Amino acid sequence: MAGKRSSGGTVAHRLIEEHLLEGRMVPGEEIGLRIDQTLTQDATGTLVMQELDALGLDRVQTDVSVQYVDHNLLQADERNAEDHAFLRSAARRFGVWYSKPGNGVSHPTHMQHFGLPGKSLAGSDSHTCAAGSLGMLAIGVGGLEVALAMAGRPLYLTMPRIWGIRLTGALPDWVSAKDVILELLRRHGVKGGVGRILEYHGPGLAGLTAMDRHVIANMGAELGATTSVFPADDAVRAFLRTESREDDFRELTAEPGARYDLDEEIDLTAVEPLIARPTSPGNVVAVREVAGEPLGQAVIGSSANPGLRDFAVAAAMVRGRQTAPGVSFDVNPTSREILQDLTRTGATLDLLAAGARLHQAGCLGCIGMGQAPASGRNSLRTFPRNFPGRSGTEDDAVWLCSPETATASALTGTITDPRAWAAEHDVPYPSLELPEEATVNTGMLEPPPAPDEAAGIRLERGPNISALPDFDPLPDTIDAPVLLTAGDHVSTDEISPAGARALPYRSNIPKLAEFTLTRLDADYPRRATELREHGGHLIVAGENWGQGSSREHAAITLRHLGLRAVLARSYARIHWQNLANFGVLALEFDDPDDQARIQPGDRLRLDGLHEALAPEAPPTLTARNTTREETYRLHHHLSDRQRRAVLSGGTIPALAPTTP
Amino acid sequence: MAGKRSSGGTVAHRLIEEHLLEGRMVPGEEIGLRIDQTLTQDATGTLVMQELDALGLDRVQTDVSVQYVDHNLLQADERNAEDHAFLRSAARRFGVWYSKPGNGVSHPTHMQHFGLPGKSLAGSDSHTCAAGSLGMLAIGVGGLEVALAMAGRPLYLTMPRIWGIRLTGALPDWVSAKDVILELLRRHGVKGGVGRILEYHGPGLAGLTAMDRHVIANMGAELGATTSVFPADDAVRAFLRTESREDDFRELTAEPGARYDLDEEIDLTAVEPLIARPTSPGNVVAVREVAGEPLGQAVIGSSANPGLRDFAVAAAMVRGRQTAPGVSFDVNPTSREILQDLTRTGATLDLLAAGARLHQAGCLGCIGMGQAPASGRNSLRTFPRNFPGRSGTEDDAVWLCSPETATASALTGTITDPRAWAAEHDVPYPSLELPEEATVNTGMLEPPPAPDEAAGIRLERGPNISALPDFDPLPDTIDAPVLLTAGDHVSTDEISPAGARALPYRSNIPKLAEFTLTRLDADYPRRATELREHGGHLIVAGENWGQGSSREHAAITLRHLGLRAVLARSYARIHWQNLANFGVLALEFDDPDDQARIQPGDRLRLDGLHEALAPEAPPTLTARNTTREETYRLHHHLSDRQRRAVLSGGTIPALAPTTP
Repeated sequence: MAGKRSSGGTVAHRLIEEHLLEGRMVPGEEIGLRIDQTLTQDATGTLVMQELDALGLDRVQTDVSVQYVDHNLLQADERNAEDHAFLRSAARRFGVWYSKPGNGVSHPTHMQHFGLPGKSLAGSDSHTCAAGSLGMLAIGVGGLEVALAMAGRPLYLTMPRIWGIRLTGALPDWVSAKDVILELLRRHGVKGGVGRILEYHGPGLAGLTAMDRHVIANMGAELGATTSVFPADDAVRAFLRTESREDDFRELTAEPGARYDLDEEIDLTAVEPLIARPTSPGNVVAVREVAGEPLGQAVIGSSANPGLRDFAVAAAMVRGRQTAPGVSFDVNPTSREILQDLTRTGATLDLLAAGARLHQAGCLGCIGMGQAPASGRNSLRTFPRNFPGRSGTEDDAVWLCSPETATASALTGTITDPRAWAAEHDVPYPSLELPEEATVNTGMLEPPPAPDEAAGIRLERGPNISALPDFDPLPDTIDAPVLLTAGDHVSTDEISPAGARALPYRSNIPKLAEFTLTRLDADYPRRATELREHGGHLIVAGENWGQGSSREHAAITLRHLGLRAVLARSYARIHWQNLANFGVLALEFDDPDDQARIQPGDRLRLDGLHEALAPEAPPTLTARNTTREETYRLHHHLSDRQRRAVLSGGTIPALAPTTP
Repeated sequence: MAGKRSSGGTVAHRLIEEHLLEGRMVPGEEIGLRIDQTLTQDATGTLVMQELDALGLDRVQTDVSVQYVDHNLLQADERNAEDHAFLRSAARRFGVWYSKPGNGVSHPTHMQHFGLPGKSLAGSDSHTCAAGSLGMLAIGVGGLEVALAMAGRPLYLTMPRIWGIRLTGALPDWVSAKDVILELLRRHGVKGGVGRILEYHGPGLAGLTAMDRHVIANMGAELGATTSVFPADDAVRAFLRTESREDDFRELTAEPGARYDLDEEIDLTAVEPLIARPTSPGNVVAVREVAGEPLGQAVIGSSANPGLRDFAVAAAMVRGRQTAPGVSFDVNPTSREILQDLTRTGATLDLLAAGARLHQAGCLGCIGMGQAPASGRNSLRTFPRNFPGRSGTEDDAVWLCSPETATASALTGTITDPRAWAAEHDVPYPSLELPEEATVNTGMLEPPPAPDEAAGIRLERGPNISALPDFDPLPDTIDAPVLLTAGDHVSTDEISPAGARALPYRSNIPKLAEFTLTRLDADYPRRATELREHGGHLIVAGENWGQGSSREHAAITLRHLGLRAVLARSYARIHWQNLANFGVLALEFDDPDDQARIQPGDRLRLDGLHEALAPEAPPTLTARNTTREETYRLHHHLSDRQRRAVLSGGTIPALAPTTP
């Protein structure tokens, strides 16, 4: 193992080293990692379970795999409940824990029950990285990657660079963890973490609890980072003690003199209340700069502010007060156990008395399952994302901020810096007394049955659970029109929308495909379908194509509609992997200016693909624009493994034994 | 006034007498009543507010009018939130109280804050009758009837017969108020109360609290009753004392020797746990007869079991236990104040610890806004209705029962008689200690502004708020095809579905019309639209056409699609009024057997309608089936006022000054 070490003893390096099965720890090279744990949620998990079925798996090979139900909780029709029944049956069949609807959001619930310093975790949710708060190597990937990890195969990724973020000082009153990650987004934007692991260190860590670190690690996803990592130190020990799991603690810190590939410093003392304006987590400004704007809604909760303290601070602020008329103050508990603790400490009563709409534990508005605001009316949320339309409202105006800012604003009815509110009302920053022992209640967390019993369990496929589509191998020549030319930072929310209309079809690819890219072009699915049997189509995009959610549906529905290749300036990590997994060729321009030369409807021709994607072949291609008589030089980053997948039509056919 | 008295000193007679403005108290004759209070909820209220605007109202003429937001709470897209903003602006404009989303379900919330013995209440919700629990004359009607009452006009209805229901004995352990009304439904079915007021009296009353009576009065709607009435006695005084409103008490009981038009007796001691099977509240059997059937969901809450005790008994039953795997146990608090009291007494914590999914206060699954069960999987609910598809699931299997039965079943995973569960686990019937003073929190109940301020308020019409359609007068001849022949007991849920898909369009008649009758005939809206400009169409139906919800949308969307007349065996009261209000002729067969002679597609011709509907003209008509060369004798029950409305194309055009 020692020979594989490339550099310096950071927590991230140590974690990778301990799990390295293939490759070298050289930034940019593909590595294969052993995965100890997996998590899946329901919106991505129904496909994962079907993939396990397609792979012929008998029982998962991980230490722990958990299927959460936290996304599709509205149950506007029978489809959600049928997905739940399917997931429970599949979890039981394959030896997976099942977390019932209402038990809680995967990330904090997983951290509370299964988080183990030093372990690796792959999750089919982009915010899986939140478990980095406990010194885990926790990576959000597409569902098929998770399915393969559940089957005992390595998780492949590109070795990232380790970005040391040194924290000094301590957060001032009315400033909290959310403001720290917003500060990083303010500095570096939504591409700032691409190809990197963010590793936090320094004396400032001492003032951040494990749940504060969860907030920061969670939204590392919004910088495009591979993951975020904190050391497993006394704060982690204290968290595990609170969860009655101190025995699970293992110290894991950077070696003395550890070297980071890149360095950054944040003086926590200088951080102030920040807020991301609509419609990107990267649009960060100081709250004071936008104070006074009216709002119609404020929501606290989500995996980006999941801890007991995040709700308790809000409860302390509203105690004895009323939220403003015309403002809906929505409280989304992140787990049933956190809600139990809020209730036994009296915080629930304070929130209710002040006019909170208290909802069931789950993701809810964070994934557009309800809580959609009125068009154009400001909604302040403690959520991780505010991509356009993700709230369920086409013309939405969603802002991202801390619980302190959201709550102060709910009380006043306008965007309010909590420091200004406190000064005006002479309110001291709440000194919270949280229980030393958190409630531990596993009643909604069903362990997998023993192998004998599991083997006899039948998958309960309701009428909404369609089979995975089969995809054909890559032809040697692609000759197809460009159906869409997109700009920078198009998110998977725009490619395959979530929300109450589309999410119920997450188990039904043909139906879900009807929503594909409709936020950018309402007619895209129809035109793509027309071309599907005639060579398919292409997409041209700018930077960071496919940022955000890990949903592999974004890749699968594009492929289902006949997409054969994307030509982009750059890709977001997870979506790029998903494209390869489902047989779509992800190419990059050598000259970024070529992007603008291509117009919708132009016909492109790529020849000799089989040879170009052969093992060890140079990663370069050319595309001929036969409409304009131009040629573009392109390259790709596909590993040999991924080339085989793309050539075969996807990873599952690449793995399947050849039928004679 | 004394001269108008027709009979005998019952509470119902006294209430009617005190509010009688027009007509005689003779069963079957039209009477006009003074209305003291109104309630509207959001699913019907957006039209009421537009009707007030169309009527040119400046300020409501009632003592109290309240606009609740309890139906459309999911906010799957921007439409719900935009309706809320519109309703708040309209409430403020017209001098109406506004109950914010999350404050609670209209019926218990109104009872708690505004219920006054001896007063009259008209509400655009069929369960408005629940306030009869306090000795009010509380009547559910179509939205336009409420709008006219808000404008100070009389509420018209057909003088009902008074049905005295004498209660003796006391309910056994594990049997509660819900079982009493299920017993009446078991005896008399969903038409048993048509044309009647159910008035409860007798020694058995002493054991029923005001909230127990609310349960019974609420579901009187399911018998088709005009309303239900209880005396204002010590139980009502005790309720008002708990709500810190004892000064509002006024005793109102039947005079000694009061005479009922009909008599019934229920020995409470003999009532056992009952349950209504899918898909009608009238399909009542004993729980023990169906015990052992598996379930996927149990839900407690709704206006049919809204009281603190209904949740507290469930909490006591689940304390220290866990709900069954694979069962979703949903708890829908009926008001934020009840949830506050549940929380301060510890019941919320017990429910959460046992695995409850605790939802915001509101109607939720009762109106198909979420909580839809899986197809064909049993769902037990403490709700008032289980019409097919009302849950949001086409092929649903919803059962109606008491909180005791729902909770015992959630714990076991099969339909369970709570007495059997208690015997098996040696559990005594919970002795509940409820707070002597209920929480009173008006923070989410916004009083109307003063007239000066109100006059300057602008209605906030979002893009989803369409104007009321204009309807043309009745032609002298209808010559049109029969587009649909329906059976008995078709509900307004089947005519104009609620649920998460359709409800957001409640402010948008053209869009909502696309859902009309699709549960019976998916193609109905298309065919009706084709015929609309060619003389419209007719519907033929059996008994009790239009039972259930008061939604006038059922009449408006039918009319919008070109319906000119219905030929039925009989009608449910509210829908029949709504048809007249929107210019649809509601006719009944003299010979009920004629119904079966008419086939879909038959063309019927009705001539000389203007003369037939003239004031004082005999209420008889004939229809000629020109396809089959048959003639049918028909009659109607329209008052002269209603005849004018039908001839004019509806009540609003009938009221409008004639334009030259």
